[in-house]
Amino acid sequence: MSILEAKRTAPTRETSLTTTMKALVYQGPGKKAVEDRPMPKITAPTDAIVRITKTTICGTDLHILKGDVPTCKPGRILGHEGVGVVEDVGAGVTTFHPGDRVLISCISSCGRCEYCRKGMYSHCTTGGWILGNEIDGTQAEYVRIPYADTSLYRLPEGAEEDALVMLSDILPTGFECGVLNGKVKPGDTVTIVGSGPIGLAALLTAQFYSPAEIIMVDLDDNRLEVAKRFGATATVNSDDGKAVEKIMTMTGGRGVDTAIEAVGVPATFVVCEDIVAPGGTIANVGVHGVKADLHLERLWSHNITITTRLVDTVTTPMLLKTVQSGKIDPKRLITHRFKMENILDAYETFGNAASTRALKVLIEA
Amino acid sequence: MSILEAKRTAPTRETSLTTTMKALVYQGPGKKAVEDRPMPKITAPTDAIVRITKTTICGTDLHILKGDVPTCKPGRILGHEGVGVVEDVGAGVTTFHPGDRVLISCISSCGRCEYCRKGMYSHCTTGGWILGNEIDGTQAEYVRIPYADTSLYRLPEGAEEDALVMLSDILPTGFECGVLNGKVKPGDTVTIVGSGPIGLAALLTAQFYSPAEIIMVDLDDNRLEVAKRFGATATVNSDDGKAVEKIMTMTGGRGVDTAIEAVGVPATFVVCEDIVAPGGTIANVGVHGVKADLHLERLWSHNITITTRLVDTVTTPMLLKTVQSGKIDPKRLITHRFKMENILDAYETFGNAASTRALKVLIEA
Amino acid sequence: MSILEAKRTAPTRETSLTTTMKALVYQGPGKKAVEDRPMPKITAPTDAIVRITKTTICGTDLHILKGDVPTCKPGRILGHEGVGVVEDVGAGVTTFHPGDRVLISCISSCGRCEYCRKGMYSHCTTGGWILGNEIDGTQAEYVRIPYADTSLYRLPEGAEEDALVMLSDILPTGFECGVLNGKVKPGDTVTIVGSGPIGLAALLTAQFYSPAEIIMVDLDDNRLEVAKRFGATATVNSDDGKAVEKIMTMTGGRGVDTAIEAVGVPATFVVCEDIVAPGGTIANVGVHGVKADLHLERLWSHNITITTRLVDTVTTPMLLKTVQSGKIDPKRLITHRFKMENILDAYETFGNAASTRALKVLIEA
Amino acid sequence: MSILEAKRTAPTRETSLTTTMKALVYQGPGKKAVEDRPMPKITAPTDAIVRITKTTICGTDLHILKGDVPTCKPGRILGHEGVGVVEDVGAGVTTFHPGDRVLISCISSCGRCEYCRKGMYSHCTTGGWILGNEIDGTQAEYVRIPYADTSLYRLPEGAEEDALVMLSDILPTGFECGVLNGKVKPGDTVTIVGSGPIGLAALLTAQFYSPAEIIMVDLDDNRLEVAKRFGATATVNSDDGKAVEKIMTMTGGRGVDTAIEAVGVPATFVVCEDIVAPGGTIANVGVHGVKADLHLERLWSHNITITTRLVDTVTTPMLLKTVQSGKIDPKRLITHRFKMENILDAYETFGNAASTRALKVLIEA
Repeated sequence: MSILEAKRTAPTRETSLTTTMKALVYQGPGKKAVEDRPMPKITAPTDAIVRITKTTICGTDLHILKGDVPTCKPGRILGHEGVGVVEDVGAGVTTFHPGDRVLISCISSCGRCEYCRKGMYSHCTTGGWILGNEIDGTQAEYVRIPYADTSLYRLPEGAEEDALVMLSDILPTGFECGVLNGKVKPGDTVTIVGSGPIGLAALLTAQFYSPAEIIMVDLDDNRLEVAKRFGATATVNSDDGKAVEKIMTMTGGRGVDTAIEAVGVPATFVVCEDIVAPGGTIANVGVHGVKADLHLERLWSHNITITTRLVDTVTTPMLLKTVQSGKIDPKRLITHRFKMENILDAYETFGNAASTRALKVLIEA
Repeated sequence: MSILEAKRTAPTRETSLTTTMKALVYQGPGKKAVEDRPMPKITAPTDAIVRITKTTICGTDLHILKGDVPTCKPGRILGHEGVGVVEDVGAGVTTFHPGDRVLISCISSCGRCEYCRKGMYSHCTTGGWILGNEIDGTQAEYVRIPYADTSLYRLPEGAEEDALVMLSDILPTGFECGVLNGKVKPGDTVTIVGSGPIGLAALLTAQFYSPAEIIMVDLDDNRLEVAKRFGATATVNSDDGKAVEKIMTMTGGRGVDTAIEAVGVPATFVVCEDIVAPGGTIANVGVHGVKADLHLERLWSHNITITTRLVDTVTTPMLLKTVQSGKIDPKRLITHRFKMENILDAYETFGNAASTRALKVLIEA
Repeated sequence: MSILEAKRTAPTRETSLTTTMKALVYQGPGKKAVEDRPMPKITAPTDAIVRITKTTICGTDLHILKGDVPTCKPGRILGHEGVGVVEDVGAGVTTFHPGDRVLISCISSCGRCEYCRKGMYSHCTTGGWILGNEIDGTQAEYVRIPYADTSLYRLPEGAEEDALVMLSDILPTGFECGVLNGKVKPGDTVTIVGSGPIGLAALLTAQFYSPAEIIMVDLDDNRLEVAKRFGATATVNSDDGKAVEKIMTMTGGRGVDTAIEAVGVPATFVVCEDIVAPGGTIANVGVHGVKADLHLERLWSHNITITTRLVDTVTTPMLLKTVQSGKIDPKRLITHRFKMENILDAYETFGNAASTRALKVLIEA
Repeated sequence: MSILEAKRTAPTRETSLTTTMKALVYQGPGKKAVEDRPMPKITAPTDAIVRITKTTICGTDLHILKGDVPTCKPGRILGHEGVGVVEDVGAGVTTFHPGDRVLISCISSCGRCEYCRKGMYSHCTTGGWILGNEIDGTQAEYVRIPYADTSLYRLPEGAEEDALVMLSDILPTGFECGVLNGKVKPGDTVTIVGSGPIGLAALLTAQFYSPAEIIMVDLDDNRLEVAKRFGATATVNSDDGKAVEKIMTMTGGRGVDTAIEAVGVPATFVVCEDIVAPGGTIANVGVHGVKADLHLERLWSHNITITTRLVDTVTTPMLLKTVQSGKIDPKRLITHRFKMENILDAYETFGNAASTRALKVLIEA
């Protein structure tokens, strides 16, 4: 306890000398820059300040930069993933102390509203996905985390930080929205449409449930190669527009038990409608910008289930255990590493994934 | 046993004298007639012949008559609902004997294919909805029932036949496709879009789970009146195009936990999309002829579930118990009664429900 | 907001004049008294002080008075049920404000530990059942409630306080431990062994799910009479030791789908083992002081489930909705009413339930 | 079709020449012999006759030989596991034809009774575990299988018969009674008490769900060695009576999420009670001859679930897929092989497992 107290004093004093920090700031559609920003401060008794040791970039950050996310205003520090060290906590925080190494959830959860009490943290009435969106995020030296008690997770003893950065968002997203909602079971046939980072996260976590077949679909042969190394039992390049036909042949005309949509455009959603077997599930993971056709004239009698979900990160404790026990190695998603000062290069690499073959880029303090 | 044997002999002898029966026959789009048809015979060891005592007409029969159901060819005896008395059974039938009073399920289930073993009888590889569709149906004096052991249900002692005719199709359809798939729970807010017979069946069976609110939506004030008598806590006439607005107001802007679509057109499905709360379920019951818009640009992050289902009649044993114990009175759905010889009048009445206020029309032998 | 602020100021000022309050204090086995005790104070930022308007006595309070609950030390103010008005809140409380009318849960939930995050509040690592046990309780003019944000529930507009006192403990206990764990379903046959307040709470809430039969078992004909009025379809006085035999006859030798144990002694638990049908569930609600025989030599092959549970009060929001919508009337459990100053009379009445026919005794400020 | 017909004719003709076959017959407690017995015949339209190509011996067969199974009378051919070739089918069998290679389920399921319709084949009103118990079994050259359509499973193309013999009983038993009932989930901590064939089957199938830890308990170091090779993350020899203490230490005092009892004596069941964490599950797999103590005085408030189950073999289709896709290799359970004529040696080896280190002994035609 006294050691913790000592730790608590030390960094606080040190940081009181520093008044600014480096941060990646969204400056309006198409514009971003590394800026000097004031250090974040505790503003509510439930807040914590975390010093970021590792963070990463999400596809959603690219969406923001295109101007597609109206809730995110110019001037916002981006980023909703990361691990770090607790620097300071508000009076109401009981679980964490300065010096604690923590995983930051991309979803802030108050733990007390109707939605949080149901485990639907994504719809927390005063939280949800706000980091790097409605409040400043993790692509900075420090970040303020609201509702720290219920939005941070202590890193297990000896945990690899690199691996755990993948647990802020991408792994729970693939797992909750794709695999759990998709009800993947032993012996099942699963298709994941989209072999980008999120599709691959679904691929890795689907294997928790021992499906017999996991067919990955993408336009990019490189990503399909990665999928094979990550455990896909078959791959389909959908370039020729024959993905449905091929998958129906592969499944003896029966279709798949679970179709996971991990792209976010109408065409790939309709592929899922076309390949799902009677009694099967379409689990949407993709972020969609426009509506899709729902072929009820065919599906009304097929006993299917369609699910949508913004990640709740309610499975973070479970995922931490699977990582600690070696059931999954999320580091495999990391293709590139950068120092924080080179975060613009990291964006460049991540933004040109087709040529750089980037999946997740790790950014270290 | 000997009594059963006696019974078995008697009707068989009697019917052996009769070689034809009256039946309502589909004669192609827009045409139907009462015809003399040969008595049905056992053609497989798993068949039973049932003498119909009561039957009814389903909205689907009207669809067939419009020519909308390509699997149903001219010359087909219509009808997939009814109760009756077993007249004869094939060598492989072990559960039923001549003289047994039985409920006929609208779904024929072989009990042995992959789908039947999972309780998804609607997709039985050699059965499913075939009665009055791919094989001759129940709007006749006699009907052949395939897979009798797993497609008939013994009437409980003292059961009211009128009530149980509603268990062939409409009650399990409202219950399985609407209420069970919709995951109705105590305290929930439910909206059922469509207050026709199927919507009302969903209304009656939703009350098994004590939701706090059941809001019924329809264009017909008469049907909404019926809904109130059947337990709706509120009704909305959607004539003015403001159903969504009204329901959102009624729910304090929150939306509903379960939205049951019981019409079968794109507009009402989209109403369900518009009123479902985050975390809620849209359970489709309606038979759709065209695709609908799925607003994934909004729903992708709402943690919703959409289900479709052709009734499996897997809950028939449960529903029989609820009827026997007085938890539900399905006779309330019956508005008109006809003798079999006047079945054309029954069609006339049922087909003009707006003016006749018909819900279900009972046809007695 | 300003009205709330005004309210906040007012009672605080008023109470600052008062320094003591009346409270029912456990003074060691067999001894209790009404004492003057200091007013409770906020001791943690997550605390609230609630002025009690209504409370009640639980069977567990009688257990404490017998000396059966070692965690409860002499000097403790008893009581873990009640409704009241928030008087003061700590700095970390965001959901409630002075002047709010609230329901107090018998379970204190931190909302942030592993168990709370799973909805298993009963095993909260720093909370659980501590009120009137490890910390001072609700049978007093004021009570300190830890983790107020996640342990209090706002009374709905126009709510009847009398009814809602039953939601602190007895109704969620009967519902969660008995009905939910017992997986009661439409059409089921349920037996509840024990027709005291808890058994009756299970009886009331079991009806949310429309079982076909609810058979109540007790030694006291008066309580069985009450059970009939509350919805039991049959009753069995087990005085003659033939309860099992009678229930097996009633169920045609099949046994029951759900057997709820609401007494807490080995003999009644074994009755449940004897009557549960293959595939059925025994849901234990009773507080047991000694072990029971588990007849695995018979049950190993019966596909049964046995559950135990300390109430989590995770269903309080659901129960509030069912009360507000009139699906259940928990006031029916209240047989006697007392003013707080006569709480010793209330104990006398409740402690002699066999002669007074007391179920729940309401104690008003 | 015509090939099948040809096949059908051929073996029938051949066997019509043979009138007797070799079979292992139970002759009363402690006595067994290989006898010449008449060939089985179709006696009901739902029967099939199967020529056994591979069978095995179950621990239950040893129980029968001790006289512990009163339903099994002297004169009975033992055995309820095996694969073979369909020789003849009754008139009501539609799924199988002579010449089909099939897996025999240890449970006969009529597919039409209330229990079968719920997937609880073990309690089929006219089937269940009858093979090698109430009717002649599979340790013979031929066997009659009642309800063939719903009690046999077609061998997948290219399937290894050796592996699939393990799917008759042991693998579904470990999986359904242990793993599924035990609700094993990713990241969980599981203990399996008993590292015999059944415990090892639970160990193999538990890994379908990626638990973090599987701790195996046994008295026999050899079996614990095998368990390690099969995927146990830790083993405990309970010889010193300190198994509970050790497991509590291993789990940081928390206990296990799932405790699987795979021995069948009171002491090991109580170990499970002692190690199960709050909210956890005890899944009983063992066959018990006497009652056990259920420590409700401690467990009543621990929110635990206890399950019992006779295997239903309802997961056979799922298990077939996991074997075919290489998710599990059940052949690993086979330690010894014998020809049918040496079945008495097989019994000798299996009956002395401690010295022979036998797990499953394969017996080939």
